[in-house]
Amino acid sequence: MSNVDYQSVNDIVIFGALGDLSHRKLIPALYQLDVLGLINKGSRIVGVARKTLSVDEFKHFVVDSLDSFVNESIDDVVLARFINRLIYQALDFQAYSTFDQLATLLSNQQNIRVYYFSTPAAIYGDICKGLNHAKLISDVDRVVIEKPIGHSLESSIEINNQVSKYFQEKQTYRIDHYLGKETVLNLLVLRFANSLFTNNWDRNCIDHVQITVAESVGIEGRWGFYDDAGQMRDMVQNHLLQILSLLAMEPPADLSATSVRAEKLKVVKALKPINRENIKEKTVRGQYTDGFLNGVAVSGYVNEKDANAKSNTETFVAIKAEIDNWRWKGVPFYLRTGKRMPKKHSEIVVHFKPQPHNIFQESHSDLPANKLTIRLQPDEGVELQIMNKIPGIASQMLIQENKLDLSFSDTYHNERVVDAYERLMLEILNGNQSLFVSRHEVEAAWVWADSIIAAWQTTNEAPKPYAAGSWGPVSSIALIARDDRQWVE
Amino acid sequence: MSNVDYQSVNDIVIFGALGDLSHRKLIPALYQLDVLGLINKGSRIVGVARKTLSVDEFKHFVVDSLDSFVNESIDDVVLARFINRLIYQALDFQAYSTFDQLATLLSNQQNIRVYYFSTPAAIYGDICKGLNHAKLISDVDRVVIEKPIGHSLESSIEINNQVSKYFQEKQTYRIDHYLGKETVLNLLVLRFANSLFTNNWDRNCIDHVQITVAESVGIEGRWGFYDDAGQMRDMVQNHLLQILSLLAMEPPADLSATSVRAEKLKVVKALKPINRENIKEKTVRGQYTDGFLNGVAVSGYVNEKDANAKSNTETFVAIKAEIDNWRWKGVPFYLRTGKRMPKKHSEIVVHFKPQPHNIFQESHSDLPANKLTIRLQPDEGVELQIMNKIPGIASQMLIQENKLDLSFSDTYHNERVVDAYERLMLEILNGNQSLFVSRHEVEAAWVWADSIIAAWQTTNEAPKPYAAGSWGPVSSIALIARDDRQWVE
Repeated sequence: MSNVDYQSVNDIVIFGALGDLSHRKLIPALYQLDVLGLINKGSRIVGVARKTLSVDEFKHFVVDSLDSFVNESIDDVVLARFINRLIYQALDFQAYSTFDQLATLLSNQQNIRVYYFSTPAAIYGDICKGLNHAKLISDVDRVVIEKPIGHSLESSIEINNQVSKYFQEKQTYRIDHYLGKETVLNLLVLRFANSLFTNNWDRNCIDHVQITVAESVGIEGRWGFYDDAGQMRDMVQNHLLQILSLLAMEPPADLSATSVRAEKLKVVKALKPINRENIKEKTVRGQYTDGFLNGVAVSGYVNEKDANAKSNTETFVAIKAEIDNWRWKGVPFYLRTGKRMPKKHSEIVVHFKPQPHNIFQESHSDLPANKLTIRLQPDEGVELQIMNKIPGIASQMLIQENKLDLSFSDTYHNERVVDAYERLMLEILNGNQSLFVSRHEVEAAWVWADSIIAAWQTTNEAPKPYAAGSWGPVSSIALIARDDRQWVE
Repeated sequence: MSNVDYQSVNDIVIFGALGDLSHRKLIPALYQLDVLGLINKGSRIVGVARKTLSVDEFKHFVVDSLDSFVNESIDDVVLARFINRLIYQALDFQAYSTFDQLATLLSNQQNIRVYYFSTPAAIYGDICKGLNHAKLISDVDRVVIEKPIGHSLESSIEINNQVSKYFQEKQTYRIDHYLGKETVLNLLVLRFANSLFTNNWDRNCIDHVQITVAESVGIEGRWGFYDDAGQMRDMVQNHLLQILSLLAMEPPADLSATSVRAEKLKVVKALKPINRENIKEKTVRGQYTDGFLNGVAVSGYVNEKDANAKSNTETFVAIKAEIDNWRWKGVPFYLRTGKRMPKKHSEIVVHFKPQPHNIFQESHSDLPANKLTIRLQPDEGVELQIMNKIPGIASQMLIQENKLDLSFSDTYHNERVVDAYERLMLEILNGNQSLFVSRHEVEAAWVWADSIIAAWQTTNEAPKPYAAGSWGPVSSIALIARDDRQWVE
């Protein structure tokens, strides 16, 4: 978000260029940046993959990607320019000779190289070694690695070590695409550009926070991969903790990567450990069973294609997270995420404390507290629930909860929705790490997540069943009800 | 707002029943309460005026009032019931014999009597004496007196003394109809049912407050009366100070009249005196000259019908009011009210403090502060201005001021707008003084207003001219600009 240098000439090298992420997200994102004039004239895009392909075949692949995943009509002039940037190099990740061929392609230029590893983490090490062998890594080059970065603290350290042997931390961009979402970025503005929120953002004013990331989809053909991870690794350890840390961090002195990442790290490190002793009280694991979604029967998790009928992997997690620091002591952050929930629905609800004294008790024995709702998707927006007098003659003061609403799609209906990958790709080109996850943070997140996963393994309990199309197991309701609160629905 | 006793049977005696206020407001208000079943079956409405009139003639006058000033279609059943309540008594306010006739009319009943003095204040004393002579005042009876209650502290004391000889303070209802307005009442709910506002309602969080009550009308045929008063007495001493005291009072322990009125009084008493020494710095007087309103030429104040061309009476006032107490020290309340302004427009704008530190300075060197706008009329509603990220790819964080808006007319479009007099009349019938001005408060308001008026007389400056259809004299802009602020327009 600073250090702008659109002028820098880049070679953007995508490893795994023929893969799904590249096809659906990376290529369209680069094209959109080109439309906006945010890619230097001299910059090139280098597709790299195992498969032997001519440049023309790669260009066809790229055009297909744009046709399929760019909503707007394609601009011919931009397209011609974009196509012109394309190069393709087939690569055997374990054969140095093919890296030498890549070096020949890239050698004539003084361009800053951006290596985007859109491959399984298992081969990050090989790629790094190959690049090093071919003398393709200088101090100004950058590497982008995609989550999941590991499966645990241990494997995360291993992967990071393999990369950090060749790239310094300041060259390493770890992507969590939630950090590129408009509404997630807006958290920074809401929190730090509004005194009304800045002044009320602590244990004195906030009762608790709920973060819900619900998906209606099931596993969608990646059963084996998912079953190995589960919802805790797939969603909580990364996305939900990212949202949590932006919500809860101390105000950074500025928006520089150093300041923002230091504050986020402090939050993750201050998370109260969850372990064998408190696992039952603080967490719920669930797994969906056969059910109905929008009136259509859908299969349970273990009845999906390729499923292992005995899987104990969780598809739902609810956690009462607590942050042991001065600002948040005693303020629970309830996290909840699952597959096959009633709808795609992600939101943050900040529940302010109720009024200490109620002068309206004659008409309202229980005065609802103010709530700030930040809708992440769909229908992104911000909503503040406040109490108002209901107009009318009733002799008591009748009060109603009303919403002060700002729907982004209504307000900004002319704006194209910028995909998270566009934003993140631009930040990489600009050399700004603010929106990328530091190694310290990834590892701190794994420490916390591993402890939970280990405690689940110790208790050896099966996940609680919930019908597909429901909001998760009953225990999730009980988790929050024990604190005399309830999920917003 | 408490002590409900719709069940009490009243004789509602309107002195000046044939006058304008009665015709436009009081009779329609009583009818509406009857529609809602809020007037006891046995209650009677007694019209009293100088003129000799038969009951039937009075009934015609009442029907005409309803036809002219009730927007909804008249309900025949209610109308029959309402007409049945009517009695008329001609009265010479200085002739005891006619009070004896009134006593005969009222004598058979155990009804609680409500005496509504819709007459010039000059005859309040005579009416009280007459009622007392005819033994028409018991401890449970109530008297309603209309503003203006006096022309200065001295005359206010005199009027209140005349009434208080016969009615105790707990029997005396001093009307300021602003206290019956929905949006003014909603101030109580906004302030005390929302922790987000309650927690931010002080010198730590609020920079300043603006209260604007602008009218587009001129003097409209009451030139002589108005010229004797001026905008300070006509609007500031009563309506604007009422709004100010509800906005600024400490949270009362409950909504009882005792609690609410004690807190309001404390605010008025804490107003920093304005006198000869600071009058120029703290106030602006204006008088409108010929101008244009909505494209139509309109006359200046001294060119209106019946005008005295040399009048120095103000038709506009701007004041920087300050409250010398713990909560508000250093927070100015800018008051502004005038005739012949561009539109009818009353609103309160609470300006919160700007953020102490701006992490968005790269894109916004000057971050606007949060504002809460309470629109009193027209289009009543509440609006909170907050900062949001503008969706888009710009590499800096682009921020925009957005409105979280609650328009009452949109939200409550099915609700009939309750007139202030309905609300206040109901409170009188219910014996609740919360929404009426205590003698202490009226007198404290005069102390403050008198000092300003006296200081103006001492300086002997003519009011500053402003063109009809403008927002007042340039000095009004300068008044607030000296503090590096500006009027919201």
